[in-house]
Amino acid sequence: MNNILRIGIAGYGNLGRGVEAAVSAAEDMELEYVFTRRDPSSLEIRTDSAEVLGYDEIASHAGGMDVLVICAGSATDLPEMTPELAGLVNVVDSFDTHANIPEHFAKVDAASKEAGTTALISAGWDPGLFSIARTYGLSVLPGGKAYTFWGRGVSQGHSDAVRRIDGVIDCRQYTEPVREAMDRVRNGEDPELSVRDKHKRVCYVVAEEGADKAVIEEKIKTMPNYFADYDTTVHFITAEEMARDHAGLPHGGSVIVSGATGYEKEMHDTFEFSLDLDSNPMFTGSVLAAYARAVSRLSAAGHAGCVTVLDIAPAMLSPLSHEELISTLL
Amino acid sequence: MNNILRIGIAGYGNLGRGVEAAVSAAEDMELEYVFTRRDPSSLEIRTDSAEVLGYDEIASHAGGMDVLVICAGSATDLPEMTPELAGLVNVVDSFDTHANIPEHFAKVDAASKEAGTTALISAGWDPGLFSIARTYGLSVLPGGKAYTFWGRGVSQGHSDAVRRIDGVIDCRQYTEPVREAMDRVRNGEDPELSVRDKHKRVCYVVAEEGADKAVIEEKIKTMPNYFADYDTTVHFITAEEMARDHAGLPHGGSVIVSGATGYEKEMHDTFEFSLDLDSNPMFTGSVLAAYARAVSRLSAAGHAGCVTVLDIAPAMLSPLSHEELISTLL
Repeated sequence: MNNILRIGIAGYGNLGRGVEAAVSAAEDMELEYVFTRRDPSSLEIRTDSAEVLGYDEIASHAGGMDVLVICAGSATDLPEMTPELAGLVNVVDSFDTHANIPEHFAKVDAASKEAGTTALISAGWDPGLFSIARTYGLSVLPGGKAYTFWGRGVSQGHSDAVRRIDGVIDCRQYTEPVREAMDRVRNGEDPELSVRDKHKRVCYVVAEEGADKAVIEEKIKTMPNYFADYDTTVHFITAEEMARDHAGLPHGGSVIVSGATGYEKEMHDTFEFSLDLDSNPMFTGSVLAAYARAVSRLSAAGHAGCVTVLDIAPAMLSPLSHEELISTLL
Repeated sequence: MNNILRIGIAGYGNLGRGVEAAVSAAEDMELEYVFTRRDPSSLEIRTDSAEVLGYDEIASHAGGMDVLVICAGSATDLPEMTPELAGLVNVVDSFDTHANIPEHFAKVDAASKEAGTTALISAGWDPGLFSIARTYGLSVLPGGKAYTFWGRGVSQGHSDAVRRIDGVIDCRQYTEPVREAMDRVRNGEDPELSVRDKHKRVCYVVAEEGADKAVIEEKIKTMPNYFADYDTTVHFITAEEMARDHAGLPHGGSVIVSGATGYEKEMHDTFEFSLDLDSNPMFTGSVLAAYARAVSRLSAAGHAGCVTVLDIAPAMLSPLSHEELISTLL
């Protein structure tokens, strides 16, 4: 694996920039292309040596990259793009609509098998590293229960929902895990937890001058699906405070698997995996880059078809050799 | 994978019993044999349907099991037993002398390749799940630093060392991580930590009547390698208190990887994996059983040779089908 991996990025939003930063930090990778839906001449990227091209040039440049990392939205873009692009080149995506993963997998698998490419879907941290933790945890603690807590972190979807309320200029919504619920899981209580028991929501809102804050707060707290089932706190702040204190996109969370071992299941064990991230898109980009390494290795070994993070051995992600891994990390 | 996995256990101490308990709880496994160095007729096991046999009968019963889990000591037993037994049957061991893993790997690899068997060494939680956490963490946070903290848990080796002191009847030694050091790592300080900075040692000692406790305490605290480099606390207790409060073998610990993402590595991330175990041998046995499942699958796929936990994809450990995994855990 001494060859330099040639990487392409399709989609240059926050996540695409996260992949670019990760590739620039990896000694075994080089960014060749950034493909964009926008006018390529309007796009400023950070990697001088990479070309910026339109989406319509992916097919003609497929031979110039080992793996294309698709950095687009799960709602409408990835369900179309990943199967199509997997027909051209090895791909990685971060498809994160949990309920639709089986359907997405089947489509991408068919396309990549036909083309002889390797595709890996749903990389990132959830789905991704959290899925891995759930799988390890429930495999070594069979009969256990896996709990996933998210936060403290910014939810873009919830922030956007608040911004659509009349009189709201800006919003940053933080999802926070309920610490007491986490402690009950750690203590082996195996609690049944409602949506409200597990997470709370905290909104920082910049309102228009003269807007009725009580009305805005009420609209937020009663919004179906987004807030009505949660304990929500609303703080009104100034645009200056928003810019100063809430510019980042931190996130994280924990998977806690509570289970038992022993002849009578009399021994309680807690298996816990946590992430605390200053930047959700930068970290997710770094995970996608590591999985691009695994995809190129699988492809070099002759694999064709779709895989997920659950199918990839840890060693496949590392730039270290097998000898280095067993002598330094095992 | 609907076949029942036929498991053998070589060595019936605490760890062997842990594997037995895990196999009895697994719907896809059955314990066929327990092999012992002792007189087989003297051994009481918990699985009525399994046969108890001497070590010298492993070869003649190799065809009756899919995987043999070797539950013996790393100091002198496993370096001999695992290469030898890998020449007969698929095996899993928990070899945990980190410095000697490359040599052990090479010997087991040669034996299993020649015999056409699959061997997996160094399973458990460290080496094992902690090795996996270090590998994932440093792959997604390249340039990061991995810190491993153990405890709070019983160290058998340290407990034994104290028991050899004149005047000591019994001892239970707990290794405890230094919480302040863990917090410094989580805060992204990337500290250089000495042995003393990371862990402290706490001994509960039952002394002979009339023994000079001050002398015992001094001998413990100044014992080279075991205690001299640590802050050690010694508590003298009664035999009744020992039996009542310190009968278990709890353990656990944390791997914390501190790293950075972003173009200028300006974003700090913490990746943390922790275990809190009521029983070290019961949990370790459960991990070995899960890796026996992976070994049988690898062997069925035609693999010959030695692998480690770093070479095994998470899905290989789970009794769930690929479809179930991607629809429920991904």
